[in-house]
Amino acid sequence: MPELRRDPVIGRWVIISKERSKRPLEFPAVKETNNGQSCPFCPGNESVTPPEILAYGRQGRTKNSAGWTLRVIPNKFPILEIEGSLNRQGDGMYDKMNGVGAHEVIIESPDHEKEIPQLPKNQAEDIFRAYKERILDLKQDMRLENILVFKNRGEYAGATLSHPHSQLIATPIVPKRVKEEVGGAKSHYEYKERCVFCDILKQETSSAERVVAENGHFLAFCPFASCFPFETWILPKFHSSKFEDIRKDELSGLAAMTQNVMGKIDRVLAKPPLNYIIHNSPLKDPHMPYTHWYLEIIPKSTHVAGFEWGSGFYVNPTPPEEAAKFLRESE
Amino acid sequence: MPELRRDPVIGRWVIISKERSKRPLEFPAVKETNNGQSCPFCPGNESVTPPEILAYGRQGRTKNSAGWTLRVIPNKFPILEIEGSLNRQGDGMYDKMNGVGAHEVIIESPDHEKEIPQLPKNQAEDIFRAYKERILDLKQDMRLENILVFKNRGEYAGATLSHPHSQLIATPIVPKRVKEEVGGAKSHYEYKERCVFCDILKQETSSAERVVAENGHFLAFCPFASCFPFETWILPKFHSSKFEDIRKDELSGLAAMTQNVMGKIDRVLAKPPLNYIIHNSPLKDPHMPYTHWYLEIIPKSTHVAGFEWGSGFYVNPTPPEEAAKFLRESE
Repeated sequence: MPELRRDPVIGRWVIISKERSKRPLEFPAVKETNNGQSCPFCPGNESVTPPEILAYGRQGRTKNSAGWTLRVIPNKFPILEIEGSLNRQGDGMYDKMNGVGAHEVIIESPDHEKEIPQLPKNQAEDIFRAYKERILDLKQDMRLENILVFKNRGEYAGATLSHPHSQLIATPIVPKRVKEEVGGAKSHYEYKERCVFCDILKQETSSAERVVAENGHFLAFCPFASCFPFETWILPKFHSSKFEDIRKDELSGLAAMTQNVMGKIDRVLAKPPLNYIIHNSPLKDPHMPYTHWYLEIIPKSTHVAGFEWGSGFYVNPTPPEEAAKFLRESE
Repeated sequence: MPELRRDPVIGRWVIISKERSKRPLEFPAVKETNNGQSCPFCPGNESVTPPEILAYGRQGRTKNSAGWTLRVIPNKFPILEIEGSLNRQGDGMYDKMNGVGAHEVIIESPDHEKEIPQLPKNQAEDIFRAYKERILDLKQDMRLENILVFKNRGEYAGATLSHPHSQLIATPIVPKRVKEEVGGAKSHYEYKERCVFCDILKQETSSAERVVAENGHFLAFCPFASCFPFETWILPKFHSSKFEDIRKDELSGLAAMTQNVMGKIDRVLAKPPLNYIIHNSPLKDPHMPYTHWYLEIIPKSTHVAGFEWGSGFYVNPTPPEEAAKFLRESE
């Protein structure tokens, strides 16, 4: 079982994943280049993966066989495990607990080559529908405090398999970064009695210089203090603190906007490695007037180096106004 | 002039470096492979760099000519600039200021190939002596609030030139990460009236399972909650909140320990890309019983991906106890 350890100075938790333990010279990580034939995520290879948790597809299809259009499975090398108790304990001055949680993979389509922008609209929607369904299911497990949904595309962005997929990780504690975001939004609300994200929405809409695209429910823009070149947020134009409460028409708008924005990024940056992350509220938080979920897309181009690690300060060589202009104009 | 922008939610500052602005397809960054001949940091090419700020070497040597053993120059593409006023201002709901600060490069030796472990002892000491000297000088500039000294080695760790060098960046605000560390140490002190780093030192010395090496003034160990495989701290065994107050014998002990630990890392991991960072107190903080400087060394092996970015949670596949054993046993 993996172990969670808490940094005694800044309180950041780290997952020490002994199961994935590597000998020194196995670094850098092995590159798993794979094509349709040997890919564990391609149809026909269902027996190679752990048994599926959820699948969409042909009616009457047998579980763990072909005929699916989207499939959710436990990660074969999970960084957290669903069985077991938390067993919080001290070790002298240090704090640790068992690595209880969930780590699932959402195989976005049977097609090894098609990324979100290339999928039919209903299949793109299914991806976000699956996120919602999995969060609602895992939320019933009272040991879990937070779920992060994210996508790593390309080896440089942390992906080990190239078949389009995203992941979710449910943790038994609220991660530091999530706490910071909720805390920051709360301070703004206490001071102004307004949601900081709704304020951002208003200013971005009125200035328009960082806007990438807009539809009925969503605004896509490059944030004012972007840490990375071409970083883009897809922010709901309606206030909602819980992604999992998304309605059918909003889900459809989110899928369309993600297809649009990822298509633009892929054209402008020649299909870069990228990450996306759904920023959401902790599972047990009630609806709040100050937290507001959003999707953050980060094309990977710069190296995070000593200065960024030591200071938490990012250096971005592309002003978001310029990035937004490139993306906006790419059709 | 670069611009500093503040994230309105979590308060993180970002440097928008327009001078370094890149067109979309210039990503990923150009690789500057260079050898002794074309290297701007090699002796004989002094005229290619901005004029030197400090140099050690032959007595009576002419400035900006060969004959040096260590040379400090302004970064040719600085992310912050020393001239100008801060000019803090709002932009609607957003906050920004001019990118005033300093960005210097410490060319560690004239030798293009020799890393710290291969240098003669006195030259290794000179590197840390130069850090101290530059901090003491910049400290007199009252616009500056913090100085981060760091090293990026290898392209993957963010270096663009291969000649051994380190850098310092002085910022007009205390970076978020530094504030967190000082804040965390302060909380521990308020609760226990002890320095958290002195407590760590005691526990690591007594358990010994994560110790890499020890000398009169310093302990090197892999921290309990290491974020990265083979992450190693060199922690002063004496309490000191200011690196720049280091005495001559301590400086000599630090250089020897860094040579020893970097040599071990280079043997065990086959000279990996790496970063090191000196964690220090903000410039204007008085001496404190709770802050305690240290050198953190991070070999780069894993990719920071969506989960880490979204959660601030790190996943480390090598328990620090195992990493420490490999390093300890490598002679």
